[in-house]
Amino acid sequence: MGMIGGGQGAFIGAVHRMAAAIDGEIELVCGAFSSSPEKSKASGEDLYLPAGRVYSSYEEMILRERELPEGERMDFVSIVTPNHVHFPPAKMALENGFHVVCDKPLAFDMQEAEALAKLVEETGLLFALTHNYTGYPMVKQARAMVQNGDLGSIRKVFVTYPQGWLSTKLEDSDSKQASWRTDPKRSGAAGAMGDIGTHAENLAEYITGLQITHLCADLNTFVPGRLLDDDGSVLLKFDNGAKGVLMASQIAAGEENALRIFVYGEKGGLEWHQMHPNSLIVRWLDKPVQTYRTGSAGLYPAALAHSRIPAGHPEGYLEAFANIYRNFAVCLRARLSGQAPSPVYEDFPTVADGLRGMRFIERVVASAQSQEKWTAF
Amino acid sequence: MGMIGGGQGAFIGAVHRMAAAIDGEIELVCGAFSSSPEKSKASGEDLYLPAGRVYSSYEEMILRERELPEGERMDFVSIVTPNHVHFPPAKMALENGFHVVCDKPLAFDMQEAEALAKLVEETGLLFALTHNYTGYPMVKQARAMVQNGDLGSIRKVFVTYPQGWLSTKLEDSDSKQASWRTDPKRSGAAGAMGDIGTHAENLAEYITGLQITHLCADLNTFVPGRLLDDDGSVLLKFDNGAKGVLMASQIAAGEENALRIFVYGEKGGLEWHQMHPNSLIVRWLDKPVQTYRTGSAGLYPAALAHSRIPAGHPEGYLEAFANIYRNFAVCLRARLSGQAPSPVYEDFPTVADGLRGMRFIERVVASAQSQEKWTAF
Amino acid sequence: MGMIGGGQGAFIGAVHRMAAAIDGEIELVCGAFSSSPEKSKASGEDLYLPAGRVYSSYEEMILRERELPEGERMDFVSIVTPNHVHFPPAKMALENGFHVVCDKPLAFDMQEAEALAKLVEETGLLFALTHNYTGYPMVKQARAMVQNGDLGSIRKVFVTYPQGWLSTKLEDSDSKQASWRTDPKRSGAAGAMGDIGTHAENLAEYITGLQITHLCADLNTFVPGRLLDDDGSVLLKFDNGAKGVLMASQIAAGEENALRIFVYGEKGGLEWHQMHPNSLIVRWLDKPVQTYRTGSAGLYPAALAHSRIPAGHPEGYLEAFANIYRNFAVCLRARLSGQAPSPVYEDFPTVADGLRGMRFIERVVASAQSQEKWTAF
Amino acid sequence: MGMIGGGQGAFIGAVHRMAAAIDGEIELVCGAFSSSPEKSKASGEDLYLPAGRVYSSYEEMILRERELPEGERMDFVSIVTPNHVHFPPAKMALENGFHVVCDKPLAFDMQEAEALAKLVEETGLLFALTHNYTGYPMVKQARAMVQNGDLGSIRKVFVTYPQGWLSTKLEDSDSKQASWRTDPKRSGAAGAMGDIGTHAENLAEYITGLQITHLCADLNTFVPGRLLDDDGSVLLKFDNGAKGVLMASQIAAGEENALRIFVYGEKGGLEWHQMHPNSLIVRWLDKPVQTYRTGSAGLYPAALAHSRIPAGHPEGYLEAFANIYRNFAVCLRARLSGQAPSPVYEDFPTVADGLRGMRFIERVVASAQSQEKWTAF
Repeated sequence: MGMIGGGQGAFIGAVHRMAAAIDGEIELVCGAFSSSPEKSKASGEDLYLPAGRVYSSYEEMILRERELPEGERMDFVSIVTPNHVHFPPAKMALENGFHVVCDKPLAFDMQEAEALAKLVEETGLLFALTHNYTGYPMVKQARAMVQNGDLGSIRKVFVTYPQGWLSTKLEDSDSKQASWRTDPKRSGAAGAMGDIGTHAENLAEYITGLQITHLCADLNTFVPGRLLDDDGSVLLKFDNGAKGVLMASQIAAGEENALRIFVYGEKGGLEWHQMHPNSLIVRWLDKPVQTYRTGSAGLYPAALAHSRIPAGHPEGYLEAFANIYRNFAVCLRARLSGQAPSPVYEDFPTVADGLRGMRFIERVVASAQSQEKWTAF
Repeated sequence: MGMIGGGQGAFIGAVHRMAAAIDGEIELVCGAFSSSPEKSKASGEDLYLPAGRVYSSYEEMILRERELPEGERMDFVSIVTPNHVHFPPAKMALENGFHVVCDKPLAFDMQEAEALAKLVEETGLLFALTHNYTGYPMVKQARAMVQNGDLGSIRKVFVTYPQGWLSTKLEDSDSKQASWRTDPKRSGAAGAMGDIGTHAENLAEYITGLQITHLCADLNTFVPGRLLDDDGSVLLKFDNGAKGVLMASQIAAGEENALRIFVYGEKGGLEWHQMHPNSLIVRWLDKPVQTYRTGSAGLYPAALAHSRIPAGHPEGYLEAFANIYRNFAVCLRARLSGQAPSPVYEDFPTVADGLRGMRFIERVVASAQSQEKWTAF
Repeated sequence: MGMIGGGQGAFIGAVHRMAAAIDGEIELVCGAFSSSPEKSKASGEDLYLPAGRVYSSYEEMILRERELPEGERMDFVSIVTPNHVHFPPAKMALENGFHVVCDKPLAFDMQEAEALAKLVEETGLLFALTHNYTGYPMVKQARAMVQNGDLGSIRKVFVTYPQGWLSTKLEDSDSKQASWRTDPKRSGAAGAMGDIGTHAENLAEYITGLQITHLCADLNTFVPGRLLDDDGSVLLKFDNGAKGVLMASQIAAGEENALRIFVYGEKGGLEWHQMHPNSLIVRWLDKPVQTYRTGSAGLYPAALAHSRIPAGHPEGYLEAFANIYRNFAVCLRARLSGQAPSPVYEDFPTVADGLRGMRFIERVVASAQSQEKWTAF
Repeated sequence: MGMIGGGQGAFIGAVHRMAAAIDGEIELVCGAFSSSPEKSKASGEDLYLPAGRVYSSYEEMILRERELPEGERMDFVSIVTPNHVHFPPAKMALENGFHVVCDKPLAFDMQEAEALAKLVEETGLLFALTHNYTGYPMVKQARAMVQNGDLGSIRKVFVTYPQGWLSTKLEDSDSKQASWRTDPKRSGAAGAMGDIGTHAENLAEYITGLQITHLCADLNTFVPGRLLDDDGSVLLKFDNGAKGVLMASQIAAGEENALRIFVYGEKGGLEWHQMHPNSLIVRWLDKPVQTYRTGSAGLYPAALAHSRIPAGHPEGYLEAFANIYRNFAVCLRARLSGQAPSPVYEDFPTVADGLRGMRFIERVVASAQSQEKWTAF
């Protein structure tokens, strides 16, 4: 793995490195960690990389690594830069034959997103998008239960993602995280909706297997002077007739990272909370509440395949994130060895999920500006 | 107290009786428990009432009780009938000088509601509407915290009320509860939104002290053949610029009575869940999460005044309901003795709350039928 | 019902009155509320009792009520005095033909307890002891599950009852509650173990149907100058070979009333927490965790018979307490009418439970003073 | 790092590898993964190690690695074998100049434990024992709060560790885990008390800073034919006069890994549950309950230093385990560079903790066999 971005002071780069390291399947061999060559070099030293594999730019990295012999050169790039620097390195990597793991959202705008999707199709290379919340075992269990019809036809979906960290004008401090996320030139058309609303959208579609067809959005900017939305609520229609509500907020003062989803079908409903990720609560019309637990009895194979340690030894955010990397690595290794991977591991978000996320951003922003109730997705 | 409705087989009548009895301040002295004289009589016997105080109709009760000497006759009526039978007895009671406690929603439609409000104003009699959820001590604490500015200016309100009991076509069975609630002739213009959506609306306005100014509603009927909405989601605007979401559903399969509210201000946010009513979770930007507990340390007087027993001895739905009756009784007793009640007890929902609830029903239904995003409240 | 004790400033007397009132089956008709005639009179006025039925002493009450005609006189006494005043009025009531409800623990010492048990047997009168925690619907469910063998043979019981209210020397203030509970002349041989340890012992035996055969106790007095134990831990042996631990503390700073029990059998284990009383968590060797809920699906008849309102409308401490009174009233009414009560209601703690509780106090104190590990129960 | 044990089919070896890998500070460079050379070789291949660094025995590994140049050879060994194979490789590693990380309990018996402690002292090498539960940020917070006197003097400690996985005779199946843990020749003098009781003992002493002085144990073997205890309860005395209870069970049917601790002082009490590790609940005599959260506001430096990602992104068992390795690595790196590590990282369990754990096992077993109540620690 060669990393693009994620130098000193970054947040998500370190997450990607830890997630990639946990299972011992992926080795960080090189990186272009910053647009500043000095910072990239210093970051590489912190990571115990040999100086020769720490590059001044992603362009240099891609070109130089391409020249290395197979087995020595990186197999794929991991792109952990702000949104406006997803497309250029992803494009260049794909064009030079490297597989790609990319942070979400996929790109800066729809145009970039569609170009990437086309390129992935043309090259046939692997492309993983780190919608990491789908990596949790209990999210896999939820999806499997819906797929197997355990809940009956789905009627209502309720997904809320409150955070409080942007309750004040943090972008005026030296917070690198706040700075680019509230900057339309680096983040794209949406703020909270792009950063976390897309996670909520992805989670809802992943678990239910349904697709949003229409939406009605109300976006808000509560912190004076902020340039992008920091809060929003969206009514949803799904392709089977189900209805939904999606709420994403970064001014929900005091909340940490409280992504939560409720899915109700004809026979029962499920509830999952990211901050208590090893429990999946399932309520039924006609029997006692059940709590499915990571690594415990009664799970579908997809849930069992995504935990590492015995029940009651809590697995968290990094382990869920690692499941994306692990599945990507399994599929990549299978491809390199000319074999088919076990289907249970052919399960990570792809460029197609990224496209839907970018479309969600575009449509939410359009709806927020419209006086009409429903906007087609 | 004389009861109208609440005969054998009814649900809410028994709740009113238990709530009125707990504190020993109110005595059930007479009733017209059913439109069937036989059933009324049988119900009165079950309640150990003397036969002479069990009436065949509310008209009879009001007229006959009026003739009894003061001190012996009932002081007020409690109306626990289906929605379409709120207005006639309430009107007659007021016109005959009796104070009124009435179940929610206030009436069948806005016309009735406005007539009642006018009558209450003209007669000067006491009128309590049993939006019982505002009776919980931790709801009082939440309201006091907002009033005192502890959370700063309110930005976002999130209130959800999922129930699952109407997930199937229960009205085709012999369920009296399901039957009238899904019948537009007895329930009014809305189903779930009238039955429980109004509770959610009332709770949000009570805690925040804000008023809804606009809404955008999506109402659904998921169970085939049902005549009224059984689910709905509503985007909200409040008069201070805050935004909100209200969800009420009776097809949230497996849910019991999961009314839950989140209120976020500039400095912190609160969470309250009706099914765990003795805890109020408050999260802050800059200090650890706090959990306020019924009867425990750190509460505002309004919260302390509405619990009966030491902390850790859970008070529930009936005790919250009883707080409405207790406060009504305190105010009534004060009035009868020509004194002012302690202000902390001058706190129960009135005809004004009822008017807002009826307006909410009307506006939600109008919005659901409109193609425009926002409908004025 | 005629009440003995429970005048102004008392705690448990008001609880008994509320519990007795909820279901409309019991009417408070008279009382001797205090050893001070003035205070008794004032208390009676607060309760809207006619002056003629408010007595200066329990002796007066029992003798005078005995003279009233049947139907008018009280049917039973409710004794809510401190422990040292349980025996004398209970004895006198029984000797004069009145049934008895008595607060726990049964008496001041074993001698009194055995005399009472004998008297109940001789008179054949009804005697209920308010070990109120067994009144919760989910405790009934727990007992029924054990009785039906759902958990297999029981191996381990774990019951903990931490409170924090005596963490300081509250008895030096004007707290009536703290004063008598820490006074060996009024409370008896034990402090925390008598006040709340007996509840824990009763709950463990009630749910499991087992009896303690041996115990090993460590009693402590942490607050300097206090005269009785304020904390204790006890190892237990049960008659089927199961083992257990019982902890009761009133210096567990910050705790409210956190009675909690875990019972493990060969096939599964259950957990119940008094502060979240409407959930019973059951864990299994081979299937997902279940949460049984008051009033909800999958319950045994005994659990269903002890809730009043639909699932999700929380029932609390008073409702559980009321179940003791309601069952007592049902059995009393059946006896008065010469019929057998429905077996599901023949379920309230009796003098036999009281005897075991007194024996528990005696044996725990003996064990605490012994250097030997095990003391026979 | 060179690993001893942890070959195919093992559980704890993989945990150690993941924990060591997360932070990118430690590289697995060699291993002797099994007493079977073939299995060791196959395991090494699975881990992408070069064949030359995969050894047939730990003796071979230690001797061969010693010959490698500094910088290339392993810096320390990680011992993840069953208990009876802790001492021999640890001794040999120390005697050959290698630092050691060792799984708990320290050794097979006290004699080995004391010999190891002496050797560590003589060689001056680093020795970490993986009592991993002390690695959780909220455990650090708990310890810091006690150290800072926030709770006042500690009075009562309550630590319970129920698991259910040995509820049946799993050792008769092919479960490698169950097999050696229930075998006195490989596990030592205790079963559940050695495997998990020592974790509970360590956690209690770590958080409170107190030491157990006396204990009174009841050990049980519930599963017929089992050779070691599978359940036990222990009363405790601490050196400041505090009292405690410790319960450890592996027949608590349905429980996963529910290590939980309550510590009560004069001013407040804390509660921590391993299965919800990112919350520390603190209750007070005179203010609302607080919940401290990993990575969130109001924490002591020791808690902040042991989390990696923002609040609300749950960190779990592996991250806590990784904190032991990370701190060990920081201290080792500091030593190798001749500098002092930051004091906040000089915090991992050492051979001294191991000695106390072994003493705990010995004393618990002695107490269980004694008729006297208290056995000195």
